[in-house]
Amino acid sequence: MGARHISFTPAKPLLASELNQSTLDAKYAVRGKIPIRADEIRNHIESNPNSHGLPYDRIISANIGNPQQLDQKPLTWYRQVLSLLQYPHILDKVDASVIHELFPKDVIERAKTILGSTGSMGAYSHSQGDSYVRKSVAKFISERDGYPADPQSIFLTGGASAAVQYLLQILSSDKNSGFLIPIPQYPLYTATIALNNAVPIGYFLDEANNWSTNPTQIRQLIHENNAKGINIKALVVINPGNPTGAILTKEDIKNIIDIAAEHGLVLIADEVYQENVFEGEFVSMKRVLSELNEQHPELYSNVQLASLHSTSKGVSGECGQRGGYMELVGFTEEVRQVVFKLASINLCSVVSGQALMELMVNPPKPGQESYEVYHAETSGIHSDLQGRSSSLYAAFNKMEDITCNKPMGAMYLFPRLNFTEESYPKLYKDSDDTGVVVDELYCVELLESTGICCVPGSGFGQVPDTYHLRTTFLPPGTEWIESWANFHKEFVKKYKG
Amino acid sequence: MGARHISFTPAKPLLASELNQSTLDAKYAVRGKIPIRADEIRNHIESNPNSHGLPYDRIISANIGNPQQLDQKPLTWYRQVLSLLQYPHILDKVDASVIHELFPKDVIERAKTILGSTGSMGAYSHSQGDSYVRKSVAKFISERDGYPADPQSIFLTGGASAAVQYLLQILSSDKNSGFLIPIPQYPLYTATIALNNAVPIGYFLDEANNWSTNPTQIRQLIHENNAKGINIKALVVINPGNPTGAILTKEDIKNIIDIAAEHGLVLIADEVYQENVFEGEFVSMKRVLSELNEQHPELYSNVQLASLHSTSKGVSGECGQRGGYMELVGFTEEVRQVVFKLASINLCSVVSGQALMELMVNPPKPGQESYEVYHAETSGIHSDLQGRSSSLYAAFNKMEDITCNKPMGAMYLFPRLNFTEESYPKLYKDSDDTGVVVDELYCVELLESTGICCVPGSGFGQVPDTYHLRTTFLPPGTEWIESWANFHKEFVKKYKG
Repeated sequence: MGARHISFTPAKPLLASELNQSTLDAKYAVRGKIPIRADEIRNHIESNPNSHGLPYDRIISANIGNPQQLDQKPLTWYRQVLSLLQYPHILDKVDASVIHELFPKDVIERAKTILGSTGSMGAYSHSQGDSYVRKSVAKFISERDGYPADPQSIFLTGGASAAVQYLLQILSSDKNSGFLIPIPQYPLYTATIALNNAVPIGYFLDEANNWSTNPTQIRQLIHENNAKGINIKALVVINPGNPTGAILTKEDIKNIIDIAAEHGLVLIADEVYQENVFEGEFVSMKRVLSELNEQHPELYSNVQLASLHSTSKGVSGECGQRGGYMELVGFTEEVRQVVFKLASINLCSVVSGQALMELMVNPPKPGQESYEVYHAETSGIHSDLQGRSSSLYAAFNKMEDITCNKPMGAMYLFPRLNFTEESYPKLYKDSDDTGVVVDELYCVELLESTGICCVPGSGFGQVPDTYHLRTTFLPPGTEWIESWANFHKEFVKKYKG
Repeated sequence: MGARHISFTPAKPLLASELNQSTLDAKYAVRGKIPIRADEIRNHIESNPNSHGLPYDRIISANIGNPQQLDQKPLTWYRQVLSLLQYPHILDKVDASVIHELFPKDVIERAKTILGSTGSMGAYSHSQGDSYVRKSVAKFISERDGYPADPQSIFLTGGASAAVQYLLQILSSDKNSGFLIPIPQYPLYTATIALNNAVPIGYFLDEANNWSTNPTQIRQLIHENNAKGINIKALVVINPGNPTGAILTKEDIKNIIDIAAEHGLVLIADEVYQENVFEGEFVSMKRVLSELNEQHPELYSNVQLASLHSTSKGVSGECGQRGGYMELVGFTEEVRQVVFKLASINLCSVVSGQALMELMVNPPKPGQESYEVYHAETSGIHSDLQGRSSSLYAAFNKMEDITCNKPMGAMYLFPRLNFTEESYPKLYKDSDDTGVVVDELYCVELLESTGICCVPGSGFGQVPDTYHLRTTFLPPGTEWIESWANFHKEFVKKYKG
């Protein structure tokens, strides 16, 4: 090596300021500043278990809907099949009687059926997803809605996030491409819009009316933005709502479809919380569109809908398994091919996640061997989640200067912090002095005082001069809720008046 | 519903021509036109098993390195642990003696260790990847290279593809951002460059010298492109080579690092085939950089290297499990944070894929219960792959007007079709008449005649007026090679002279 003749002036290392501006601009609060601080505290506690000097022993991660990070158990049905899919050879290793102690017959049959199509969890599947799984998804959709679904229109994706990214990427044709998104919204949308150099156009959900949509306001935004030269491409709907926890009425959905039909907007229906319903009824966008289309094909046959689902939510919350699907309705074959090409560049979504999606949309039926356990586990988790959401809702309603809509679905509450400048002058002074907005300041102090990690409303968007926060209701027990209530009293004492 | 007053003029549906131009421009030949035609034929055979009218009964998928789609068996070690990770409760269901028939002790211990860190396969991990897995990866790298690696610099990604996408996205600051890529290259690079509206700058690998790199040519390209106003951001190296199957010498690597150091180019080292070595030795870019840095820190301490690995290749080829990692070396913390933000927007890579990466970099050691089976399986697959590559190489060298470099690594051969216009006038006439380039025409006829699906060299890039194709050597048996040789004879007969 000494023999090489080297002579050059080394260049300077890359600065962040030289990077793609859109990657600098994108924000993702759910795993942003406050969760990053929570990680630091968690590491501090783990490194100093007996001398951390904090009034709490653990971080309560209420910033993200991640049930199995907390105490939620996976469904036996899912995991038994996934276990066999990874190691089917186990069936040959011990006697049939022993195998039957380990795996019910329907589990073994389903694993064989899935492997009959995928071959192995270790082989790339078709880029659009395994054909048997896509057929199962289509069957689920058609039974849910009473209208047919085509396996060719189903894409199996890595969670719903990958689907959102494909859609926003193909639709962002230039920097004047606009996307109508609800405010508050799940920040994946603003982040992905920023990464595609497109324009987010927020329509406000109406907090006073259970976070419903206002079609007049949406039409007004379309006119205003068209006049400014924005070419609006799509309208995003999150139902059940994240972060709001609200469920849209059928009337709301019809109004939205009318707007899409008239203005040629692609509808992106983020329906990942469709199983998480405590009050009211989830009606899919696909079903309402199909009904309208049946009655008025001259008006609705051109509507293009992409509806998204995920294995990360529901009662099971298998977030880490990265399963999801997107159904494309009404798109031209040409456009579908472009989505397919993007999926091809990614090769395929994880095959075990595809299998999990099949298990989710095609669960055991009454009479089948796994049914009882499946039914007991799913209804147990469902009522447990409902109970947790009610307890947290009740707790917020007892806190001074907090109001909260009754949770109908999803995994979140989005309470409002009614801290006016008049009543909380010290809070606004601190906010002005530090440049930290009011709701973020609340979340920072909540974290530092109690270890509870949630996300300020500013990360999701909110009506100007209103303040909220998003919290999941997933953490177990009531102790954390009590410590929140105590913190809140101190916070009000410190800043009010 | 009849009561609604509906009156609007429905808009036209979206045309592909209205989409983001970059998504229309991107090309990905590995799953492009010929593989899509192969899918059609496969469907035709499956739908008409007894009356398909073709001279073959199945498609031989030699277009993509997907070993488990063919006959390759997964490693028992991987699958036993993955099976337990999905359903650890199996350990409580039967007697210890039965469990021990099913799972060796080290499998059970490893599953417990991984679950001790991840909690569950169903929980989102840290966006950068589980901390225990990242520590294992860092240990693997430091033992491989003899230089330390930092778990904080490791990102666990969905295969290596996700890492390439993060890197190209952050580095593409405007439409004059350039990326030096080898020609021929794996088309993920050109596709991702197109999606980021950046400029691919191909440097030719030297076929006559075992596909080695030519530093003089790379420097020349840098000068030419800088003069044109292109801001070159990174230099991509694929080692072992895809599609070439070649392995770079240490001297080649040093020369590349010198260029990066002098011109401030990020080095992207795609080293996913590092276990697939039949001849010569794989030396990692990280190791060579560390050596240079130790001797001449004044020259090399600013070099920024991203090196990529994957669970999809190696002897196991667990493509469908989507595991991978990226190590960032020499990047500023600011830049690392931007990569982290992109990873956060994707939440996390699939957790079972992260676990698989751990099993790959930290396999059973001599004396451990799983070692013998692991060793027997991995060496069996390795020598089997080596045998297949040699047989195919020998077959190509017997074919008229085909030359092929000796395969050293990876999963591919990239033979050259020496069909000159002088010798093959009919072929060029057909090519002119149909607008299908010569190598594509060869691949189309090969597919239609034999069912063998491979990819024309034009999908990877090649020196103008040369023609190649990429084929994996993964399909089992020799019958397909014979049918290829017979096809080739007919092709030469049809077109030569």
